Amino acid sequence: MNTSLFTSATTRDGVVERDFVVGEVPGVLWSPVDASPGTPLVLMGHGGGLHKRSRGLVARAREAVLRDGFVVAAIDAPGHGDRPRSAQDQHWVDTMLAERAAGRSMAATIADYNRSLVERAVPEWRAALDALQELPEIGSGMPIGYSGMTLASAIGIPLVVAESRITAAVFGGVFVYDDITIAARRVTIPIEFLLPLDDPEIDRQSGLDLFDEFASEDKTLHAFPGSHFTVPVERVDTRFFARQLRPGGPATTTH
Amino acid sequence: MNTSLFTSATTRDGVVERDFVVGEVPGVLWSPVDASPGTPLVLMGHGGGLHKRSRGLVARAREAVLRDGFVVAAIDAPGHGDRPRSAQDQHWVDTMLAERAAGRSMAATIADYNRSLVERAVPEWRAALDALQELPEIGSGMPIGYSGMTLASAIGIPLVVAESRITAAVFGGVFVYDDITIAARRVTIPIEFLLPLDDPEIDRQSGLDLFDEFASEDKTLHAFPGSHFTVPVERVDTRFFARQLRPGGPATTTH
Repeated sequence: MNTSLFTSATTRDGVVERDFVVGEVPGVLWSPVDASPGTPLVLMGHGGGLHKRSRGLVARAREAVLRDGFVVAAIDAPGHGDRPRSAQDQHWVDTMLAERAAGRSMAATIADYNRSLVERAVPEWRAALDALQELPEIGSGMPIGYSGMTLASAIGIPLVVAESRITAAVFGGVFVYDDITIAARRVTIPIEFLLPLDDPEIDRQSGLDLFDEFASEDKTLHAFPGSHFTVPVERVDTRFFARQLRPGGPATTTH
Repeated sequence: MNTSLFTSATTRDGVVERDFVVGEVPGVLWSPVDASPGTPLVLMGHGGGLHKRSRGLVARAREAVLRDGFVVAAIDAPGHGDRPRSAQDQHWVDTMLAERAAGRSMAATIADYNRSLVERAVPEWRAALDALQELPEIGSGMPIGYSGMTLASAIGIPLVVAESRITAAVFGGVFVYDDITIAARRVTIPIEFLLPLDDPEIDRQSGLDLFDEFASEDKTLHAFPGSHFTVPVERVDTRFFARQLRPGGPATTTH
């Protein structure tokens, strides 16, 4: 039991929100006031350039706690949020911004940068999961899901391949390079995949092709007009985690 | 008020099921035991070769009644179910079956047959709606949705263009010919579109292209492996009609 994991705790509108640090990695845990061992846990990754308390992520986390009674954890990716950014990471970011400004392809830079982030972030998520499972109200027996688009999918797809504790995932809007495709072929857990149909920087066809590559028998594609900045979460909500992580569980209410 | 609409009534497992006839067209109305005026109505179309009491349709109708408290209506398409099939319709069906057996394209035959069915079915749905709205427990003020794949989309897409009483629709798995594309460009109500990704007879790209053509600002594509015979309704259920037809309404329970 590791109660020193947490550095702060507040309760706001029925959700307990606690900051934690595992190694160098800061995270947030959102829980129901009455969470008990066995409560499903959803790991939520943030998008590129964002952080563990990005507006959309917090809204989805609170919804998962209040509606489904889940526990939700988020951590900052390397060089994101409260974490220092290395000179090399800053160089990649500067290069991407310059390429975007000049109308040049960012593909090679995104692939290099994301490969490096994935290499660091996958072990960080696994260490965070180890630490969280030592908490008495979580324990080691609960179902675990992973959810995250863009950078969080670039990290999440190899994460769910490496981490057998995760049994269901939502991905989408991800820039596809070889490693992602190769990892997707090894994903067999149920997934949902969100595809923005008109993203200026992520080709529609690459998303359709990646969806085809997932080895999961249970997989569904949810596509919508617009870019990955405008994911209509309320429109594509299929109660995926409620079905996957709490099969036959207590009925939950919808809005 | 037209109480003579119904030819039979039974109550089974909490759902009132009544047969009706409007003109020459037989239909079924499923309702909650306690339906009141203003209850949302969902029109459910059946697929090609099927009928108003097809297994999947009945299951979805009962679910909509029991879970959402909706009223659901289905009618037999021309030459389907309890309705006689004309010599011309039978000729089209025979031709399609022969083409399928010979491995030839059914495209031209499907287009001709569906065009003729649509021409007849659209006014039939509108007449059924007129008759149903005379029922005291339905009335004229309720929100109305339409749901149906394959043939029911070929009929439903022009139906929702012609029929402004329908304010939300689910389509999908439809064989696309010119009239369908032209009608889709005039559809502006919120829609969901179900796309089987590996249908042997309905090209994936034609579905993606059709989805792009819908003029609806609020539209979402739900795609899944397999053919239109294996729609994983439980996997793509997004509570679409509950959100569209009963906004801000009472919370409903999920399974």
